[in-house]
Amino acid sequence: MAKQVATNITWHEGHVDREQRNKLLRQRGATIWFTGLPSSGKSTIAFTFEHALVERGHLAYVLDGDNIRHGLNKNLGFSPADRNENIRRIGEVAKLFADAGLLTCTSFISPYRADRDQARQIHDAAGLPFIEVYVQASVELCEKRDPKGLYKKARAGELKEFTGVSAPYEEPLHPELVIDSGELSPQDATSLLMLYLSAQGLVDA
Amino acid sequence: MAKQVATNITWHEGHVDREQRNKLLRQRGATIWFTGLPSSGKSTIAFTFEHALVERGHLAYVLDGDNIRHGLNKNLGFSPADRNENIRRIGEVAKLFADAGLLTCTSFISPYRADRDQARQIHDAAGLPFIEVYVQASVELCEKRDPKGLYKKARAGELKEFTGVSAPYEEPLHPELVIDSGELSPQDATSLLMLYLSAQGLVDA
Repeated sequence: MAKQVATNITWHEGHVDREQRNKLLRQRGATIWFTGLPSSGKSTIAFTFEHALVERGHLAYVLDGDNIRHGLNKNLGFSPADRNENIRRIGEVAKLFADAGLLTCTSFISPYRADRDQARQIHDAAGLPFIEVYVQASVELCEKRDPKGLYKKARAGELKEFTGVSAPYEEPLHPELVIDSGELSPQDATSLLMLYLSAQGLVDA
Repeated sequence: MAKQVATNITWHEGHVDREQRNKLLRQRGATIWFTGLPSSGKSTIAFTFEHALVERGHLAYVLDGDNIRHGLNKNLGFSPADRNENIRRIGEVAKLFADAGLLTCTSFISPYRADRDQARQIHDAAGLPFIEVYVQASVELCEKRDPKGLYKKARAGELKEFTGVSAPYEEPLHPELVIDSGELSPQDATSLLMLYLSAQGLVDA
């Protein structure tokens, strides 16, 4: 029976062309890299954006601490070397997702410029769009929100190397977008992101 | 301007529901895990299958040595510990792809049962289908094909720990499918895989 069905299957070597998948999905795969202080609003914005994209018929996926730190990167801690490897792996996985045609949102503090630049270079080398989105909020504001009580623990010395308190956050120098989460609601941020993606030709206007 | 567009955007917490993405793609995300000796035909079958899926409007993606060993796993060698970590990471990434709704093909020798079982468990725990496909071919046949001359090098002692020559291959005990690549062409194998996916309700009949 297999032989009969086989007549309409062509044999190709190598990967499906990126354009074929983009055409199928009616979008261009890309990585939207959210960076910012703890409690700056990265994940809230990323999830609101993901839902809005999927509701409009686009394929989007969020990589965040929940699905990365408990899986792929569960063998990494918070030493400088492990933090670097954490972001390196996320950059590589985001690149694969973008290559597969997805609008891939990553939501990680990613405090070091060098690590973010490495993720950008991985995408550049593969000819894939990399959109760095700086979710800006003052430490004071983030600390006031502090939904998980992490700043409190950090101030009490229970959490060491906590970004914004006892570890540095290096602001992006040339991000594609800056979202001031003290000013813009997650919905407004999503509208802004949607307009940006549309202007870049990654999704239909 | 952002505010106006925002009126039709709802704010959701957490990830988009898996079913929403499956509905959008008209398929169910799953991992098709190809395993077998070097030169057994895994990649040829995986790519033929990927092309056939995309031509039918399905979103598929192949994870293989080319896009994994040069990227995500470029810091891993071939020691037993590194081989294990190699397959562990691939299992985790395949799970993320399947969760995102893709029909994800992995094409790696993956010679150890324990490593493949770990990948299966990762999928089981996430409620995602894991289809182990054993691409069966005798060492003699694989060695006769040897398109990259690797068996030759291994026999000459230039490649150590080469699966099938100087390192073991543990045959799957209960694979979902066995494809004898000495008997079935890549096109026939693709037809078989398509029928299987359709019978499992992962793609439309």
